[in-house]
Amino acid sequence: MDFMKPETVLDLANIRDALVRMEDTVLFNLIERAQFYRTADIYNESLFTVPGFHGSFLDWFITEQEKIQAKIRRYEAPDEVPFFPDELLKPILPPVNYPNILAPYYKEININLEIKQIYTEKIVPLVAACDGQQPENWGSTSVCDIECLQALSRRIHFGKFVAEAKYQQETERYRKLILDKDIPGIEAAITNSAVEELILERLKKKVDLYGVDPSLKWSQKQQGKINKDAVVQIYKTWVIPLTKKVEVDYLLRRLEE
Amino acid sequence: MDFMKPETVLDLANIRDALVRMEDTVLFNLIERAQFYRTADIYNESLFTVPGFHGSFLDWFITEQEKIQAKIRRYEAPDEVPFFPDELLKPILPPVNYPNILAPYYKEININLEIKQIYTEKIVPLVAACDGQQPENWGSTSVCDIECLQALSRRIHFGKFVAEAKYQQETERYRKLILDKDIPGIEAAITNSAVEELILERLKKKVDLYGVDPSLKWSQKQQGKINKDAVVQIYKTWVIPLTKKVEVDYLLRRLEE
Repeated sequence: MDFMKPETVLDLANIRDALVRMEDTVLFNLIERAQFYRTADIYNESLFTVPGFHGSFLDWFITEQEKIQAKIRRYEAPDEVPFFPDELLKPILPPVNYPNILAPYYKEININLEIKQIYTEKIVPLVAACDGQQPENWGSTSVCDIECLQALSRRIHFGKFVAEAKYQQETERYRKLILDKDIPGIEAAITNSAVEELILERLKKKVDLYGVDPSLKWSQKQQGKINKDAVVQIYKTWVIPLTKKVEVDYLLRRLEE
Repeated sequence: MDFMKPETVLDLANIRDALVRMEDTVLFNLIERAQFYRTADIYNESLFTVPGFHGSFLDWFITEQEKIQAKIRRYEAPDEVPFFPDELLKPILPPVNYPNILAPYYKEININLEIKQIYTEKIVPLVAACDGQQPENWGSTSVCDIECLQALSRRIHFGKFVAEAKYQQETERYRKLILDKDIPGIEAAITNSAVEELILERLKKKVDLYGVDPSLKWSQKQQGKINKDAVVQIYKTWVIPLTKKVEVDYLLRRLEE
């Protein structure tokens, strides 16, 4: 996706290609996370104390990571959304001056805290190697967690581009729905059940391919690297609905001056 | 790999499983890097200036990243090797107290600067989407770079465990070779050409599976996400020989008091 060329970014075929490619990133990262135990202590605020910081160990690590990544301009890119936007540091690189592609309020559409909660409470239990704790692996586990979270966040917030493209394609239809604050109408307008089915089918194929070691294909060690059904369920239950939530949130404000 | 149980770590079958699993991590990361241009400016020391820092933009980013990761104990783990060991910060988590598995000097076996040079000069040109520059993607590209470098470094330095396991298996044979400083003899003793062939064959299968979008299988868009031959070449030309270099470096000092 070349954000320097706005006309290509809002082409729905290009958006689709970007979303398909992002599935791989999400899946690769979930497979990496699946190597580790659940280790739920990482997400427990009462088990982590650093002076001047309130939050879980994972929150602390995300904050530190985002500070550095802000320094290298991650959050200037229109498709990157921080989990802790108030903690970011100033970039050390010159600004990129991305052309305007989305409506001016786009950075305010940020459901990362909801994504983080669903990830730690629902998604991790589905993919982790087992339910226990690995205290010596807090570091490795949180490194995987932040990569999963960033990949999921980017995928879900890409709904802003989907929404903007659809709005530009059918401006009159959306204007009316937005003026009427007709949320079920907007949801119906942005939903394409056939495409959603295709996503889930493609994802199942990808898990079948990426989730096992091909050299073990005919051996007994066929358990795979990740719970196959989990990945499809994660998309069906959370990724697709949350993307639509982002689309709706974005569209509802689209007529702001 | 459970470093809390030394007896399992030095079992060659477990080491093999760990190395097979690491192939996926290396491959996933190379596929992510392949989305971006070469952008060689990132690696050019003369194009990056930050007061008090000497090095390329990538060097700066690796240093910042390693500082944080040291805080979460990454470099206490016996299989993690820093690129800039003099810049690390103290962990904020309590020490893990890993049991001794390797010889006491194991942290001094560190060929990361050589790995970084080969990666930036030889490997990136083979995997990057094209030879040009993407100034707006310095950040994303360097994020992929550090993940590739860490995955390659971990894989290559795992040679220390291979070497220790082989030494314990055939102590007398290696003692004699080490006392004679017989480097070609050590190289011959640690080389198993049949296993190397198997690695390359398995890798080719993995690239065939992970490197294309399965839903595009019968379409014209079959160019794949990464140059397939490149991955096998990277293992054959650098990963396997550098792993053996680590093994030899480690073994040559094995009789130190």
